[in-house]
Amino acid sequence: MLQPAPAVPGMPEDEIDTPALILDLDAFEHNLAAMRDLLAPFPKVKLRAHTKTHKSAVVAHLQGRHGAIGQCTQKVGEAEALAWGGVSDILVSNEVVGRSKLARLASLARIAEVGLCADDIAHITAAEAVAEAAGIRLKMLVEIEVGSQRCGVSPGEPAVELAKRIAASRHLRFGGLQAYHGRAQHISRWADRKVAIAGTAEVTRRTVDQLRQHGLDCQIVGGAGSGSFLLEAGSGTFTEVQAGSYVFMDSDYGAIEGPDGAKALPFRQSLFVLATVISAARPGIAVLDAGHKAVPLGWGLPRVVGMPDVKVTSHSDEHGNLAIEGSTRRPAVGEKLRLLPPHCDPTVDRYDWYVGVRGGRVECVWPIAARGAMH
Amino acid sequence: MLQPAPAVPGMPEDEIDTPALILDLDAFEHNLAAMRDLLAPFPKVKLRAHTKTHKSAVVAHLQGRHGAIGQCTQKVGEAEALAWGGVSDILVSNEVVGRSKLARLASLARIAEVGLCADDIAHITAAEAVAEAAGIRLKMLVEIEVGSQRCGVSPGEPAVELAKRIAASRHLRFGGLQAYHGRAQHISRWADRKVAIAGTAEVTRRTVDQLRQHGLDCQIVGGAGSGSFLLEAGSGTFTEVQAGSYVFMDSDYGAIEGPDGAKALPFRQSLFVLATVISAARPGIAVLDAGHKAVPLGWGLPRVVGMPDVKVTSHSDEHGNLAIEGSTRRPAVGEKLRLLPPHCDPTVDRYDWYVGVRGGRVECVWPIAARGAMH
Repeated sequence: MLQPAPAVPGMPEDEIDTPALILDLDAFEHNLAAMRDLLAPFPKVKLRAHTKTHKSAVVAHLQGRHGAIGQCTQKVGEAEALAWGGVSDILVSNEVVGRSKLARLASLARIAEVGLCADDIAHITAAEAVAEAAGIRLKMLVEIEVGSQRCGVSPGEPAVELAKRIAASRHLRFGGLQAYHGRAQHISRWADRKVAIAGTAEVTRRTVDQLRQHGLDCQIVGGAGSGSFLLEAGSGTFTEVQAGSYVFMDSDYGAIEGPDGAKALPFRQSLFVLATVISAARPGIAVLDAGHKAVPLGWGLPRVVGMPDVKVTSHSDEHGNLAIEGSTRRPAVGEKLRLLPPHCDPTVDRYDWYVGVRGGRVECVWPIAARGAMH
Repeated sequence: MLQPAPAVPGMPEDEIDTPALILDLDAFEHNLAAMRDLLAPFPKVKLRAHTKTHKSAVVAHLQGRHGAIGQCTQKVGEAEALAWGGVSDILVSNEVVGRSKLARLASLARIAEVGLCADDIAHITAAEAVAEAAGIRLKMLVEIEVGSQRCGVSPGEPAVELAKRIAASRHLRFGGLQAYHGRAQHISRWADRKVAIAGTAEVTRRTVDQLRQHGLDCQIVGGAGSGSFLLEAGSGTFTEVQAGSYVFMDSDYGAIEGPDGAKALPFRQSLFVLATVISAARPGIAVLDAGHKAVPLGWGLPRVVGMPDVKVTSHSDEHGNLAIEGSTRRPAVGEKLRLLPPHCDPTVDRYDWYVGVRGGRVECVWPIAARGAMH
């Protein structure tokens, strides 16, 4: 069931029902503009922002107003939320398996430019059959393995073979290459990320050249995330970068080194979880109404904004314990605190609404229409 | 947005859209009956099953048909889903902070028996004000700390003070004690759990006695989870046990010792996540369409049912990597596999639908109405 919105525009932040997902609008808008400015020196490289982070057509449109030419998604359900919300250019940057998923994607091709990826002949024949039945031509990219050790056919000849098969189909259209190096995104040192992405760009460039020798042009050469996109953008090979996390940031991304000497990426944390202290009955402990259902586990525990001497020490299903022993400020029952989530993507996917806040007041409440869209 | 149901009754299991939450109905019904039978020797002890595990009025009613006298919840939103779905006796076994949450709970008191907990005078005065405004009398239990080191006032005199304050209110009704020892649930050795719960029962009994000396009877003395409920049930002190996970089980609970010498608790795993292989392009690896958004992190990675030599080696947002090097069966693109989630509660809370399966066919599709109900 859709959960009710936890706030109404105009409300002070401390009246928001908790746990709530808070978007600091000043920081969010800074990030939108910073990305546009960072990509300005690369006029041939476009931003195709990643929906898996924000799950919302509202955010997608704002990214579009700051230069994004479209969105990429991991799931057909995310593509539906975008297309139904008026986003016109969507790439599922992932393999799509299953006839019903493919049929849903093909149906979106009537209202938006859509595409998907393949790393196996099975993906191509399945997409071809569904596109034929739907009477449309489906754009298909070949995903190549460039360091993620996950999906992706080997670069070079194996990729060319798949591309030729796609291009030969009357129901498909060869769209280019998907070359995402996920593991490089969180390499802490910029110099090490640079080396990793140089390798990615090199094998990608060679595959693009081989394709060209077979008369196959890559409309899209896509990849990159928030940790590495300037490297792909500067490679001369990539035409699109697929950063997502930059709009929100999180403590994971906040901890990595920025380009060439900068201490951090030039984006600000804009995403928070607002929680309420519900118990302070035990000495040295305060308990929040936000546990791991509110801030998923897996990347460490959240930090409390503005209270460096207060630590989240454990998260159960619905409770977060704070150690307040050494703190000068002792949070009281009813007090609201902002938490800094360690990883933005799964945190967003827990909520039905963004609550946009500026200057201590709620300015907007936006639906997270693709929340839970795993199909 | 509510996600579409991934299956239709009658469908073979391998046509279910993935990732999907699968309920093995034979195992589920075994668990319902096993709990009824295990509690039969304790006629004075009732099951108040925990909604935070299943998030569904459908499951609550089936528990009711197997002896449960009601449900407990951690959140008002869960209580709403139950009351609106016809469940008639609901205890929020947690502190409720915030005027709008209290007002929503008070409004439910018109259609169901409801209650909540307090461990601080602030909880009592806030609930009193809202109950007065709503023109109802709200049942309130005192939560005592019995080992969880989370919420709960100290047993004995501090608990008696709060209980007297509740009982003195014209808008509240003293309902008894909440005494849940969360940390004891996953103590692996039965003998160690026995010692832990003996301590819990002893401080609880003493507090019940002290309350009686002040003329305050405990209608409810509640606590216990799936790991320890037989110990609370046999204590002579507890009147209600609040087990939840027993209906589904998970690898965390499956790994602990059962009562007195049994190798495991007498419940079967009934909850699975069905996933599809979407890529097998890399040697030694198969990739599933289920990552940590489908099976939350924090308790280890899921196991693959029926394939002990295939290991889930990593989970990213939307992908699960399987190491298939040493396996005799190599999963192919399109193949569907059942995953065994390590912790059922947060896994259920990722999905909008249960897909009930028996003998390889979908028998029912049930809404998870309190999915995401964190308020």
